Amino acid sequence: MQIGVVGLGRMGANIARRLMRAGHACVVHDADPATTQALAAEGATAAGSLAELVAALAAPRTVWVMLPAGDVTESALAELIGLLSPGDTVIDGGNTYWKDDVRRAKTLADRGLSYLDIGTSGGVWGLERGYCLMIGGDKAVVERLDPIFRALAPGRGDIPETRHREARESTAEQGYLHCGPNGAGHYVKMIHNGIEYGMMQAFAEGFDILRNAASPRLPEEMRLDLDVADIAEVWRRGSVVTSWLLDLTAEALAADPALSHYSGHVADSGEGRWTVEAAIEQATPAEVLTSALYTRFRSRQDHTFAEKVLSAMRAGFGGHREPK
Amino acid sequence: MQIGVVGLGRMGANIARRLMRAGHACVVHDADPATTQALAAEGATAAGSLAELVAALAAPRTVWVMLPAGDVTESALAELIGLLSPGDTVIDGGNTYWKDDVRRAKTLADRGLSYLDIGTSGGVWGLERGYCLMIGGDKAVVERLDPIFRALAPGRGDIPETRHREARESTAEQGYLHCGPNGAGHYVKMIHNGIEYGMMQAFAEGFDILRNAASPRLPEEMRLDLDVADIAEVWRRGSVVTSWLLDLTAEALAADPALSHYSGHVADSGEGRWTVEAAIEQATPAEVLTSALYTRFRSRQDHTFAEKVLSAMRAGFGGHREPK
Amino acid sequence: MQIGVVGLGRMGANIARRLMRAGHACVVHDADPATTQALAAEGATAAGSLAELVAALAAPRTVWVMLPAGDVTESALAELIGLLSPGDTVIDGGNTYWKDDVRRAKTLADRGLSYLDIGTSGGVWGLERGYCLMIGGDKAVVERLDPIFRALAPGRGDIPETRHREARESTAEQGYLHCGPNGAGHYVKMIHNGIEYGMMQAFAEGFDILRNAASPRLPEEMRLDLDVADIAEVWRRGSVVTSWLLDLTAEALAADPALSHYSGHVADSGEGRWTVEAAIEQATPAEVLTSALYTRFRSRQDHTFAEKVLSAMRAGFGGHREPK
Amino acid sequence: MQIGVVGLGRMGANIARRLMRAGHACVVHDADPATTQALAAEGATAAGSLAELVAALAAPRTVWVMLPAGDVTESALAELIGLLSPGDTVIDGGNTYWKDDVRRAKTLADRGLSYLDIGTSGGVWGLERGYCLMIGGDKAVVERLDPIFRALAPGRGDIPETRHREARESTAEQGYLHCGPNGAGHYVKMIHNGIEYGMMQAFAEGFDILRNAASPRLPEEMRLDLDVADIAEVWRRGSVVTSWLLDLTAEALAADPALSHYSGHVADSGEGRWTVEAAIEQATPAEVLTSALYTRFRSRQDHTFAEKVLSAMRAGFGGHREPK
Repeated sequence: MQIGVVGLGRMGANIARRLMRAGHACVVHDADPATTQALAAEGATAAGSLAELVAALAAPRTVWVMLPAGDVTESALAELIGLLSPGDTVIDGGNTYWKDDVRRAKTLADRGLSYLDIGTSGGVWGLERGYCLMIGGDKAVVERLDPIFRALAPGRGDIPETRHREARESTAEQGYLHCGPNGAGHYVKMIHNGIEYGMMQAFAEGFDILRNAASPRLPEEMRLDLDVADIAEVWRRGSVVTSWLLDLTAEALAADPALSHYSGHVADSGEGRWTVEAAIEQATPAEVLTSALYTRFRSRQDHTFAEKVLSAMRAGFGGHREPK
Repeated sequence: MQIGVVGLGRMGANIARRLMRAGHACVVHDADPATTQALAAEGATAAGSLAELVAALAAPRTVWVMLPAGDVTESALAELIGLLSPGDTVIDGGNTYWKDDVRRAKTLADRGLSYLDIGTSGGVWGLERGYCLMIGGDKAVVERLDPIFRALAPGRGDIPETRHREARESTAEQGYLHCGPNGAGHYVKMIHNGIEYGMMQAFAEGFDILRNAASPRLPEEMRLDLDVADIAEVWRRGSVVTSWLLDLTAEALAADPALSHYSGHVADSGEGRWTVEAAIEQATPAEVLTSALYTRFRSRQDHTFAEKVLSAMRAGFGGHREPK
Repeated sequence: MQIGVVGLGRMGANIARRLMRAGHACVVHDADPATTQALAAEGATAAGSLAELVAALAAPRTVWVMLPAGDVTESALAELIGLLSPGDTVIDGGNTYWKDDVRRAKTLADRGLSYLDIGTSGGVWGLERGYCLMIGGDKAVVERLDPIFRALAPGRGDIPETRHREARESTAEQGYLHCGPNGAGHYVKMIHNGIEYGMMQAFAEGFDILRNAASPRLPEEMRLDLDVADIAEVWRRGSVVTSWLLDLTAEALAADPALSHYSGHVADSGEGRWTVEAAIEQATPAEVLTSALYTRFRSRQDHTFAEKVLSAMRAGFGGHREPK
Repeated sequence: MQIGVVGLGRMGANIARRLMRAGHACVVHDADPATTQALAAEGATAAGSLAELVAALAAPRTVWVMLPAGDVTESALAELIGLLSPGDTVIDGGNTYWKDDVRRAKTLADRGLSYLDIGTSGGVWGLERGYCLMIGGDKAVVERLDPIFRALAPGRGDIPETRHREARESTAEQGYLHCGPNGAGHYVKMIHNGIEYGMMQAFAEGFDILRNAASPRLPEEMRLDLDVADIAEVWRRGSVVTSWLLDLTAEALAADPALSHYSGHVADSGEGRWTVEAAIEQATPAEVLTSALYTRFRSRQDHTFAEKVLSAMRAGFGGHREPK
């Protein structure tokens, strides 16, 4: 099939590459002309503008937008709406807030356009490993674009089949899934990332304790000097915590068990926050997913005002002076 | 009555003073002779050693030990055991782990000595305001020493009577309570401090959010520039959160709404940790008390290894570089 | 002054009463005519409709709306907008979301109407104790209505003055405060309630541990049989956790130390949720306020799906069967 | 090699089987003679008592004890100490508290006996998949018993090699690791299980939110009806959360997306609790691992006393009655 790809960052460029490897034709555009040209050198058709990109596609067109969530995506969509024709489809593969998808899908439907929200997991590894796709939108559109999704997804690979799924017919085993109406794709991706935060924090705390087992804060006879790199490695085989995140941790610890290249400032993206919001709207307790988020907030501050309030109270009732 | 007081720090000295004001006779000892002499100048009998202190007391003796929990208290007790006679009583008014009280009480009982564990709340304000006393030990001993406790405790004051307590006979209204056998005093004090941590953290987080309502991290039209000092003050009257901790917060914020004198490093004492341990032994969930403790742990570190593990994973799957 | 009061539930009726006691004239309306008449019998002017209420007030009018947050308040406001005249003022004293205040204030301003958002704390005790008022809106309007606020607020009472406030000029010492522009009143009230949740949960967990100190889950020699009612009472004097919430807890435990009349289903109102949302928007960690909220969510379910997922995993890797 | 195996439950029996498959000779004993005989029928040498088992082994003997942690293991060890000879080795493969290992190792060393503490992960799948072994004890003993560990461990399998480990010489790639001196094996296993709890809870909360996306607590237009079984399956390929725990969840949800066979009562074993204790001893914040533990505590109660305390306070200040 033919498809337009807008936004050729780490994710967008590799999506185009993986599609081309599977024989699909990509018309690509990035705000940076050099980036666009680089991909043209790999076989894509370069478009200097969204208008050029739309013009280079045969109807019914499909345009995959892979831009940072928020204003950048929003304005690209606004421009595309003016350029596309009824029957065309816009895909937002970025990390968009699912309620924005619901709103946008209505706007596009008013113009006869289709909209798919696709949560895309795979990071820098997607080109080789394939992308896990969580898709929201109309069933007919999703089915028509099946070759695109099949090409991007990892496929069955050598992952063993799940028991009790014998009777199910689903693309889930191929690594892509039509999750429901518009919004459902990014909703599922949002929760995926919420879980990811929780899992990451579980590993992070565990390795923190392992490393601090040698802490001088402990009585000397209770200290253990553990090799966190070897521990991460041994858990990769046969243990209950085997996971891709553990593989990545093992690699990082093998390179430097002290992880001294990392500042410890940890960014967070919208999905973690929206997951908490979704939990609260439902009155679902989500202690672990929320704590994982707050830990990141805290990591980016020297000290919180909260901590100073604690010190001030302690000075007030006990005359304690906190050491600087 | 006559009583020995060992350890004349902030708490011990004021306990002696409050007892003397009520007409009790204090024999006092501190490792620092100058401190001992200072209190002698206020009417106490100075003792240069534990032996002198014991010698200056008439049997049955009562010695109130007010030293830092742990080794210091433990060795003072060991020395006292050798000096005292059957029928004498040792009081540990410090922040001792309740299981240590149970063990010690048995050791002392073997020598015919009585032991009381007394959790003492009141901080630097106790001299004027009185000390809230939580007492563990034998009933007969507690009753014999009632005049001591009555003198130290705040008394009824102008605090309104609690409904439904009309039929109860208890010293609780006077601000001291025989909580149970040995260990019970420090157990109740431990939970008191656990709750204190939780309440402090609740205020700390609330004021943090109030202050950050003006944060440049927010869109400009959503920012609010709030006067945290006035807010603390207004809540002191008629609101649900009125409390002594709020009074102290209001005072600190009135002096400096930015609390810029405080580093934000927050110490924790054993009680917060033992509270969590007690909760876990019982399988009682204690989210808030535990989070309040962990916040203090975090406040004393630049960055945790956990945070670096998070950054390393993010670099692994997404190529993210965390800003230094 | 003359004021209209709409909504005569627990809070609205007592607000009218407290205003009348201070000599203000109240025109009152409730959806239930009997409720309206009951307050008329106490000296208020009854209004059978909002139109009657507006007609009975002299310009510039002030109408205090005290209705459940959400649709009920929203539609009362919509009706009032059509009835009032430029220069009139609407007060929302309920628990409204602060962003709704910002929106509404603009709508009313377009019609020449003023709007105040007032967070009102005091519960069923406000009539006698006074209401702590947190006010958002235009300074001039707030100053004009000062007699109303002064009458409702608790006043200085016998609460000691806060040190370092000598130079401040503020109504905060009277128990009411102009917090800032529209939204600021309910924002401050929202955080107040967030803190309230955290403090409540701190007490709740602490008393849970105290009660479970006698749990058969513990080895027999480690059990303590503690009197939670007396402990709550003794803490009311001289301890660090003295607070109104402790007073209320002491009363409830004095009536029944097992609290067997309570189901343990705990409701939550919007403020707790919005507090978490505000924290997340700012990237302020708020572990304790959030955990306090989640505990309430959990209290209203028999079991969560999350717990079943845990059991299913345990069965999967360990063959564990969870007891029914 | 020849080895004794004591305790033929799910884990012990499969350990013996996997050793025999690799050509090792097992002398086995279980408190239940029928269980012992069943394994004898598979090729093991049956021992009717510990004395028989010791007698059937040639010196230097190795006895793998695989019993429930605590008293059962403790008394088996006490009996074995009396039966074994200097140079013999006892392995505790159960879930023992690491400080008990340190203590025991000293006791055994006094008799000339060696002791290894081995954390064993793999559950019911270990027979086929191999066991991940975390070993604490003397290097010489660990090296001598290498054939045993190599036989039990999963081996390299088809798991890709970790980058940056090229220069390392370690058995970690085989799935077993000498972690350090006595205690280190169970310490590492303890943290493994702590992480496991956190990861499980992350998945549990995520699937809870996915399922509640259709909750009637939400406004109708915001509901999503998601297929949790298909979502679990799609994440198994290419997503960041791929893991063995996800595989197990996918299987359980495929069998019954409502998981209606599970009560939701979730047990916890010592490791989760000891992990929190270790964190607190080090002053390492461990929010997520602790919350995961508390969630299990809460799952086993109808209501906590804490929740009733909350309701009682709410009744006190607001007149709220919580619905039964």
